[in-house]
Amino acid sequence: MVSRTTRSDFEAIWPTLSEDILAQVKEYGVPDPAITWFEKSLQYNTPGGKLNRGLSVPDTGLVLLNRTLNEEEFKDLCTLGWLTELLQAFFLVSDDVMDNSITRRGQPCWYRQPGVSMIAINDSFMLEASIYVILRKHFRSHPAYIDLVELFQDITFKTELGQLCDLITAPEDNVNLDNFSLDKYMFIVTYKTAYYSFYLPVVLALYYLQLATPSNLRQAHDILIPLGQYFQTQDDYLDAFGDPAVIGKIGTDIQDNKCSWVINQVLRLCTAEQRKILEAAYGRKDGELEAKVKAIYEELQIAQVYKKYEEKAVKELRDKIATVDESEGLKKDVFEAFLSKIYKRSK
Amino acid sequence: MVSRTTRSDFEAIWPTLSEDILAQVKEYGVPDPAITWFEKSLQYNTPGGKLNRGLSVPDTGLVLLNRTLNEEEFKDLCTLGWLTELLQAFFLVSDDVMDNSITRRGQPCWYRQPGVSMIAINDSFMLEASIYVILRKHFRSHPAYIDLVELFQDITFKTELGQLCDLITAPEDNVNLDNFSLDKYMFIVTYKTAYYSFYLPVVLALYYLQLATPSNLRQAHDILIPLGQYFQTQDDYLDAFGDPAVIGKIGTDIQDNKCSWVINQVLRLCTAEQRKILEAAYGRKDGELEAKVKAIYEELQIAQVYKKYEEKAVKELRDKIATVDESEGLKKDVFEAFLSKIYKRSK
Repeated sequence: MVSRTTRSDFEAIWPTLSEDILAQVKEYGVPDPAITWFEKSLQYNTPGGKLNRGLSVPDTGLVLLNRTLNEEEFKDLCTLGWLTELLQAFFLVSDDVMDNSITRRGQPCWYRQPGVSMIAINDSFMLEASIYVILRKHFRSHPAYIDLVELFQDITFKTELGQLCDLITAPEDNVNLDNFSLDKYMFIVTYKTAYYSFYLPVVLALYYLQLATPSNLRQAHDILIPLGQYFQTQDDYLDAFGDPAVIGKIGTDIQDNKCSWVINQVLRLCTAEQRKILEAAYGRKDGELEAKVKAIYEELQIAQVYKKYEEKAVKELRDKIATVDESEGLKKDVFEAFLSKIYKRSK
Repeated sequence: MVSRTTRSDFEAIWPTLSEDILAQVKEYGVPDPAITWFEKSLQYNTPGGKLNRGLSVPDTGLVLLNRTLNEEEFKDLCTLGWLTELLQAFFLVSDDVMDNSITRRGQPCWYRQPGVSMIAINDSFMLEASIYVILRKHFRSHPAYIDLVELFQDITFKTELGQLCDLITAPEDNVNLDNFSLDKYMFIVTYKTAYYSFYLPVVLALYYLQLATPSNLRQAHDILIPLGQYFQTQDDYLDAFGDPAVIGKIGTDIQDNKCSWVINQVLRLCTAEQRKILEAAYGRKDGELEAKVKAIYEELQIAQVYKKYEEKAVKELRDKIATVDESEGLKKDVFEAFLSKIYKRSK
């Protein structure tokens, strides 16, 4: 098996892309303070994350070709990977403003930097626009150029729809558990997370390598969307039941009124009496009320409900992966690689 | 001469486009509350403006063809016109959040509607994304499809750059007249306003009618950008010197610390003593201080400086229009129509 893309090799591509974007801006004759500002925003917000989405583009390319990438392939696939990180940066910068968040990736959120504040909204737009600057510069003559552009547009719109649904289903300042449902939960997870985090990186590699046949796209969709759903349920489980020392943060889903997998299972299983307690205690910024919610999680043995769900979800995914039709160049290993990174993770 | 597009004929196209966008969303299985929300945002924020940008797309088409549009041409050109209005809606909704504005088009800003608040940021994204939903649905098989997509992306990015420059040059809470300059002013005006308000609608019609030759694009650029600059200087002049009873609002540029054409001329012409007064009085939310600034505008006879500038700018535009090369299908009348709407307007 060919070796994975290293983080440092991937990171080495970023400065060249940031320079491409800034070169374009300089050509427009933008006054210096605006160039400096934009450069700072690009640098503060794009690198520095876990880079899972970005790295999975060249990694998918490696598996699909089943050989070491040549220099051009490596550069191009990493470039597409960085575009998923720019999309992520666009979402994170604006989400932090919408959620009034404090920190991101262990440092203050961009909008909390001195002098930034609401300018962060426009900065987030410019991170999004940078995706298309790079696509045009590097891929305009690629046969799948218009597909790449439309893919980003489509996934962006889907993510925004998921975000809208999340924002109006679970507003932090208005708890109403009647708003929650497993159907809504699955819609939010699919649109807000699964498409851009799982489907997008793989399909970028497929388009780049001209392997995006209708069958391959459909197969990728039918595995990566459930995979992304499984990933998010696991995230929600870890928020409630994970060890803070291991996951590196203290779960806040209960106090933040999140429409999580856990609360939706609880609402399905609870008694009328327990529901009353939940209605009074969920989504409140209060440790004692949070403890009451957690007590119900224990009473209903949600951790075990999750384990059963997980085994079923993983079995279904394995079954689907086993029947992947590789005749048009798709590889089971693409999906195996994702699943093995996720299954039984503790953080 | 063929007659102009009427506002009501243009408005009749909007509901069909709004339905197209919502049909796409319904196909995704979006939960009902999110569909209702998005529909409300589309309707609240897109129609209801002066529609100058939107109407100028079919109007430009009329002049270029010099005949009545057939049904398909009319529908398509109005559709492209509505996309400029969607772009405008994206900018206005987010600008109002960034500027903490109160009203827009005579009603409360969208983010001030009950329950909206910061969700308006995501709503603005969805207005932008709707442009590409419609482009794809209606123009995917048009020979200029990719040009239309790239045009919107390019103009969006330019407008965001202009907005960034404006936001950091003239923050409402930090007056520093050293930040201002006529060069910066011209950059802001060109990028924040001229491209999307003047260049975009004409070039959309050129692409649609397959008249976007390099020469026509260059000629359109070289007239419409100065025309947009002239329009904005006039807007700035009217803010300071127009009759509030005629323009329908009271000018706020002085109190809002705007980097306007007027203050930049004043800074060019004022004495050191006057500059001191300006530094203490400009950009303050105080009627008496504003009056001191206005007194300097009078002392320096800025209204006359403007009149001279206007005559010169209009003469240059007329000269350029007179020498337009019509051999590739461009028409002088396209530009004459814009100029005659703007010249000597009082509101």
